[in-house]
Amino acid sequence: MDTNLHFTLPTEVFSGRGCVAKQAQRWMLGRHALIVTGKTSARLSGALDDVCACLDARQIPYVTYEGISANPDETQVYAGAAVARTRGCDFVIAIGGGSVLDAAKSIAWVVASDVPREAFFNGVPATDPVLPIVAIPLTCGTGSEVTQYSIITDHEAKTKKNVSSAAFFPTIALLDAHYLTSLPKDVLCDTALDALSHAIEGIYSLKADCFSRALAETAIGVLMPELVRMAHGTFVNLAQLQYGSMVAGMVIAQTGTGLVHAMGYPLTYYKGMPHGRANGVLLAGYLTFMQATCASLTERILAAAGLSMPEELQALVDTLLDIQGCFREAPTEEELEVFTGDSLRLEVVRRYRTLPSPEEVKDLYRMGF
Amino acid sequence: MDTNLHFTLPTEVFSGRGCVAKQAQRWMLGRHALIVTGKTSARLSGALDDVCACLDARQIPYVTYEGISANPDETQVYAGAAVARTRGCDFVIAIGGGSVLDAAKSIAWVVASDVPREAFFNGVPATDPVLPIVAIPLTCGTGSEVTQYSIITDHEAKTKKNVSSAAFFPTIALLDAHYLTSLPKDVLCDTALDALSHAIEGIYSLKADCFSRALAETAIGVLMPELVRMAHGTFVNLAQLQYGSMVAGMVIAQTGTGLVHAMGYPLTYYKGMPHGRANGVLLAGYLTFMQATCASLTERILAAAGLSMPEELQALVDTLLDIQGCFREAPTEEELEVFTGDSLRLEVVRRYRTLPSPEEVKDLYRMGF
Repeated sequence: MDTNLHFTLPTEVFSGRGCVAKQAQRWMLGRHALIVTGKTSARLSGALDDVCACLDARQIPYVTYEGISANPDETQVYAGAAVARTRGCDFVIAIGGGSVLDAAKSIAWVVASDVPREAFFNGVPATDPVLPIVAIPLTCGTGSEVTQYSIITDHEAKTKKNVSSAAFFPTIALLDAHYLTSLPKDVLCDTALDALSHAIEGIYSLKADCFSRALAETAIGVLMPELVRMAHGTFVNLAQLQYGSMVAGMVIAQTGTGLVHAMGYPLTYYKGMPHGRANGVLLAGYLTFMQATCASLTERILAAAGLSMPEELQALVDTLLDIQGCFREAPTEEELEVFTGDSLRLEVVRRYRTLPSPEEVKDLYRMGF
Repeated sequence: MDTNLHFTLPTEVFSGRGCVAKQAQRWMLGRHALIVTGKTSARLSGALDDVCACLDARQIPYVTYEGISANPDETQVYAGAAVARTRGCDFVIAIGGGSVLDAAKSIAWVVASDVPREAFFNGVPATDPVLPIVAIPLTCGTGSEVTQYSIITDHEAKTKKNVSSAAFFPTIALLDAHYLTSLPKDVLCDTALDALSHAIEGIYSLKADCFSRALAETAIGVLMPELVRMAHGTFVNLAQLQYGSMVAGMVIAQTGTGLVHAMGYPLTYYKGMPHGRANGVLLAGYLTFMQATCASLTERILAAAGLSMPEELQALVDTLLDIQGCFREAPTEEELEVFTGDSLRLEVVRRYRTLPSPEEVKDLYRMGF
């Protein structure tokens, strides 16, 4: 009879055109802002200008750290933290994709808690203060605007590490779909596949409950029609993609990610495949694999997605990648050995009733290529 | 393209058998607790014993105010506040139905902000401190465990007033469905109808957005099968009722309630009809009325409920009330005049595209009886 539900989402979410300006009074969370961005999208999208205009109008000084790249490492985190320290910043505004949002969270922690570099990957003590964070996502995949996670690349461990803390939930998330219009089509597609992956992995997770599954079904139901439209080359509703991605973020905030992410990380780390695309190519195989042991959950996923079998998802992903002109080079047997070892070492794969064997993982990689 | 979504839920929710004891460390929000309860259910359900055992084990002193009745007024709020003040309580544990949870929120405010009695119904200033609140619901209707509302009867205005503040969201909500086993069947049914009403009114609200509507559909989909089982006299899943009611609470936290609640209040105030039952008898007529102007939203509600037309909901409610042996005395024409005037004066009825005329409101009352 019991539900054993756990839900927490301390982030206040606003979406809609112009929400950055409309909610400006709400996101003035301190007296000196550190703005964290990537190389170009914050400027291209107009989001950085909007933010600066709001800060200027309220005479809140700010400094901008534009140094975050895809798959940020702790070197970038510490460089951003150094900038914040020189100006005594007391809140962080993250404008960008998942890499930027994730790095900003770690920066907010390193600054507020004076974290020594050698302790960075040891976990965030629950009592550590973290600067308040405003999250303005410029992609539609990460969900980081509503999660407690900061995914940072650990070169020593040759993978991405999940640095997380309840204090990492942004205080406010501002979703303006207009900012996505300048996003390259392939990034739009890759990040949407990442969001879909969050929702699907979340449903199977041992940490899932009735509510996180309902949220995941909502996210899948919102994302899939847009992915289908993308594949057909017709009008895509960016606000829906951004909304679906946010709801999928709420899901992984409760469940974490799983096998697809674990297997995707090596593809990104060793082969430079974008994170969302790496997840996307593995998704259909994963559904087929899970169908054997979790038939009814798989049914729910397929129903929410409007599909009758996993192969249809594979066909959709293939079409999407073809449109992008993406050539998928199948990993060699030697590579598969390394990828499988790396992904099975991650704790997230233990969040399922069935732990796949190394041979099964290799097969899943093969199915994606 | 835009979504104009707003979502906030600062309350951390736990459900499941034994969650009060399991999460005890998390809900020790102060050094001296005020426990607020109604007359009997906190003891009958075992919830009060569980809470006291946890407090005793951690040597947190507490005082209990057991004076909350249905439809509490500010006299009860001030009596509870007086008890808290004599012992210097710094957090509030509310154990009960909507009346208890709502009263506890106002008590937490009156104590922390020293609110003069003559200012009580003037609104809660945003800067007013409020003691942290632990909410343990013992019914499955209010949703108050995840809302910012405190509904208090104002005898001068002859209706219920909505006293609300963002600071009224409980810090933690603990949902143990086992506590519902001692709930009288009619209360279970009435409160479940209240929850259903929250979800349905929320969908039509002008404040609704894609996310609150998705949550409302989830709530309707969870509640309806249990109400049908209740009508059939078969096994009812209390955890599902509690979960559906909580999700419906998340909905009204975003949208507020609407016409059904506005029309239900006079039935409660003048005729003593339980709050949820008053909403329940009005629901099907309301669906029929809204169908004319909001056809597609009505379709979504009916689909989520597994119904093909509003009349089926009326039949379900009739069966449920018959089982309870509830006799519905139709209001007289004089009463209808008063009820209609009172309900149309409430601000909540303005949350729709179509404001009903007094004659339409009277017809809606007639349809319920």
